[in-house]
Amino acid sequence: MADADAPVELLVCTTCRAGAPTDQEGPRPGTRLFEALQATDLPANVTLRGVECFSNCDHGCSITLRGGDERWTYVYGNFTGAEDAELVADGVTKYAATADGLVPWRDRSIHFRKNCIARIPPLEIPE
Amino acid sequence: MADADAPVELLVCTTCRAGAPTDQEGPRPGTRLFEALQATDLPANVTLRGVECFSNCDHGCSITLRGGDERWTYVYGNFTGAEDAELVADGVTKYAATADGLVPWRDRSIHFRKNCIARIPPLEIPE
Repeated sequence: MADADAPVELLVCTTCRAGAPTDQEGPRPGTRLFEALQATDLPANVTLRGVECFSNCDHGCSITLRGGDERWTYVYGNFTGAEDAELVADGVTKYAATADGLVPWRDRSIHFRKNCIARIPPLEIPE
Repeated sequence: MADADAPVELLVCTTCRAGAPTDQEGPRPGTRLFEALQATDLPANVTLRGVECFSNCDHGCSITLRGGDERWTYVYGNFTGAEDAELVADGVTKYAATADGLVPWRDRSIHFRKNCIARIPPLEIPE
């Protein structure tokens, strides 16, 4: 049965440039967001992982939220870097508290409402 | 181990409008694409399913390809309707022939090269 304690993965694209020039030195915005999230308090059932490229480069920085066979998977974009760590933490905290991945619209932050890139149904597709 | 015969799902958004007006009568472009695919020859390891809304409405019609714990999941967009059934069938046939979901760039159709909305790593994320 559905269980809001089921493990959740927060995947962060570490190669996202967020529109930064290709010759800019130092860590990319996606890597900075990932590092900032490593220093952020996340729910116990959330695992943070860095991934190279979600093929959403025109709308990076990007993250993906997924968790088990019963939750919808979500891709969110247009984060700008480390300064969005708290915004991402808020979103994944709400997602991880659900059994199906569906956070009520009224509970989503403005950024999450406006920057959903795509969602993918759970393996057990609801009727 | 990886197995190109592992089952693949071709998910088609049946609510996509592909830019059609909201007051247009009859089945939506996404539904027409889904119905055309039902009449199309697909590999034996592919299951076609209709899904309502991938939250990719600005770039529909949309499809998702996924298949097991070892393949990348892909969302493709900007299909126009039933007339793209053969194009989608070609893409899913190539995807279903892979063990990891990664179709070489040179083998992808122009549409698939240009209209990847997002990709999500397999559960077993490659290093």
